[in-house]
Amino acid sequence: MARDAQQKPKSGHVFALRVYFEDTDAGGIVYYANYLKYAERARTEWLRALGADHSGLMAQEGVMMTVKRCEAEFVAPAQLDDVIEVHTAIEELGGASMWLDQRIRRGLNELVRMRVRLACVNRELKPAKLPERLRALLAPLAQTSKGVG
Amino acid sequence: MARDAQQKPKSGHVFALRVYFEDTDAGGIVYYANYLKYAERARTEWLRALGADHSGLMAQEGVMMTVKRCEAEFVAPAQLDDVIEVHTAIEELGGASMWLDQRIRRGLNELVRMRVRLACVNRELKPAKLPERLRALLAPLAQTSKGVG
Amino acid sequence: MARDAQQKPKSGHVFALRVYFEDTDAGGIVYYANYLKYAERARTEWLRALGADHSGLMAQEGVMMTVKRCEAEFVAPAQLDDVIEVHTAIEELGGASMWLDQRIRRGLNELVRMRVRLACVNRELKPAKLPERLRALLAPLAQTSKGVG
Amino acid sequence: MARDAQQKPKSGHVFALRVYFEDTDAGGIVYYANYLKYAERARTEWLRALGADHSGLMAQEGVMMTVKRCEAEFVAPAQLDDVIEVHTAIEELGGASMWLDQRIRRGLNELVRMRVRLACVNRELKPAKLPERLRALLAPLAQTSKGVG
Repeated sequence: MARDAQQKPKSGHVFALRVYFEDTDAGGIVYYANYLKYAERARTEWLRALGADHSGLMAQEGVMMTVKRCEAEFVAPAQLDDVIEVHTAIEELGGASMWLDQRIRRGLNELVRMRVRLACVNRELKPAKLPERLRALLAPLAQTSKGVG
Repeated sequence: MARDAQQKPKSGHVFALRVYFEDTDAGGIVYYANYLKYAERARTEWLRALGADHSGLMAQEGVMMTVKRCEAEFVAPAQLDDVIEVHTAIEELGGASMWLDQRIRRGLNELVRMRVRLACVNRELKPAKLPERLRALLAPLAQTSKGVG
Repeated sequence: MARDAQQKPKSGHVFALRVYFEDTDAGGIVYYANYLKYAERARTEWLRALGADHSGLMAQEGVMMTVKRCEAEFVAPAQLDDVIEVHTAIEELGGASMWLDQRIRRGLNELVRMRVRLACVNRELKPAKLPERLRALLAPLAQTSKGVG
Repeated sequence: MARDAQQKPKSGHVFALRVYFEDTDAGGIVYYANYLKYAERARTEWLRALGADHSGLMAQEGVMMTVKRCEAEFVAPAQLDDVIEVHTAIEELGGASMWLDQRIRRGLNELVRMRVRLACVNRELKPAKLPERLRALLAPLAQTSKGVG
């Protein structure tokens, strides 16, 4: 239902941040590409909270997560000095990739709705299976899970 | 057909640019959000070539174009020192918005495929009709055209 | 003495932040211009902590602070996932401008040493006196204070 | 003399660029850190014109140029849609580093004056001598030249 869809993700990771001058443009609002930076900061902190920071994934498992697809709906703008939140939830977990649902909110207002497909790649940027350790951490959080990414 | 879709946009505006250090990240490739910057530089030059630069649209018509939705497929990465091209074509023209097809290429290789919905807004960031002058310039270029955006 | 200079600023505001992918470049380290972004985030939070955020300064007093000069010594690089601190102190307070001393540190290591001259400007970007309210907040913090900026 | 200083660099490399939305901030002008991006694009194209692009320097000589110090005077702001030029000249050439004089202009107006010290480093980011090939290219351009950087 639309109402459910609107309120998703019901649970998940929340990352708060402040809008600075660097984020804004001459239109007086946050420049559209910068919401993708916010989303990545949030993904990074979500993975770190799970025990899987970038440096560790590369050093121990030789992989990193890259964005293969991103769909963003810009509903309302954030402005200088705003405090906003990025809500991150995992929608679908595959063997080598996953779909995330990310929403950027200011208070109760949804500013940006994003769906992001992350894929796991090795040092040569070739597709790689998600490390078993990471998959075990993510599986309980996923709304759906498949064997192949 | 997939092959047609792959080769779209057949015509349209081409904007070439160089990848600098500022564009790359510690993965050694262009940071994903920066392709959206490239796409906007290309849209700006495309509009300017049509006689509709940002400053003029705001000064004369009191409007600006904002991105309402963006879908990006990251197919292959660009790297430091690469020269890449952004190909921009108009897919659908409405009364207050339009869909663009933007492809980022290095030589014959497609790196990023984007679909972008631009909406016209006034100084207060409220939806506004596309200025008649701009609409007249764009209509001949659009693959489909509708009365309402 | 060098040792004193090294340890300056002895007091002042401390702002901690994380290094994300967006901040790094293909050299594997933070891109040099991004330290200036960090420094501005720190100045913004320092002013906010004093009760003088950007939006308030503009709305109530019609002014904003702009950087007129910046000198940065890049001593050692920050890297992905680092947590670093920006230490901000006011060196000299004038009537319409001030000099700040900003140091970026990772633990005990100094990464970047900056001196920044901020000037107060009005809506038309013309020089303006520091609002009396702001000057009263800053004067006790300044190492030296002059009547004219 | 002040007049001479004002007009330096008399010769040197010129790189033109356009100001896009991504470069501006909510103050309506180019964000201060972004002039450092412009300056680096110009240095990159200056080195490339001399036959020494980044990828080549790293692949063939195992070195890259990094900024050790930067002094920037922000004289007047650039705005959306402006076309501006970065003028780059070499001031002093050492054995492992150099000082550059970079000016950003819009027409006859000087917007930013920068002095930048570049140092040559190896893959491990340790100081390295300037490759002989690069030094031979740069020496005729330098206003002063020293044996040690």
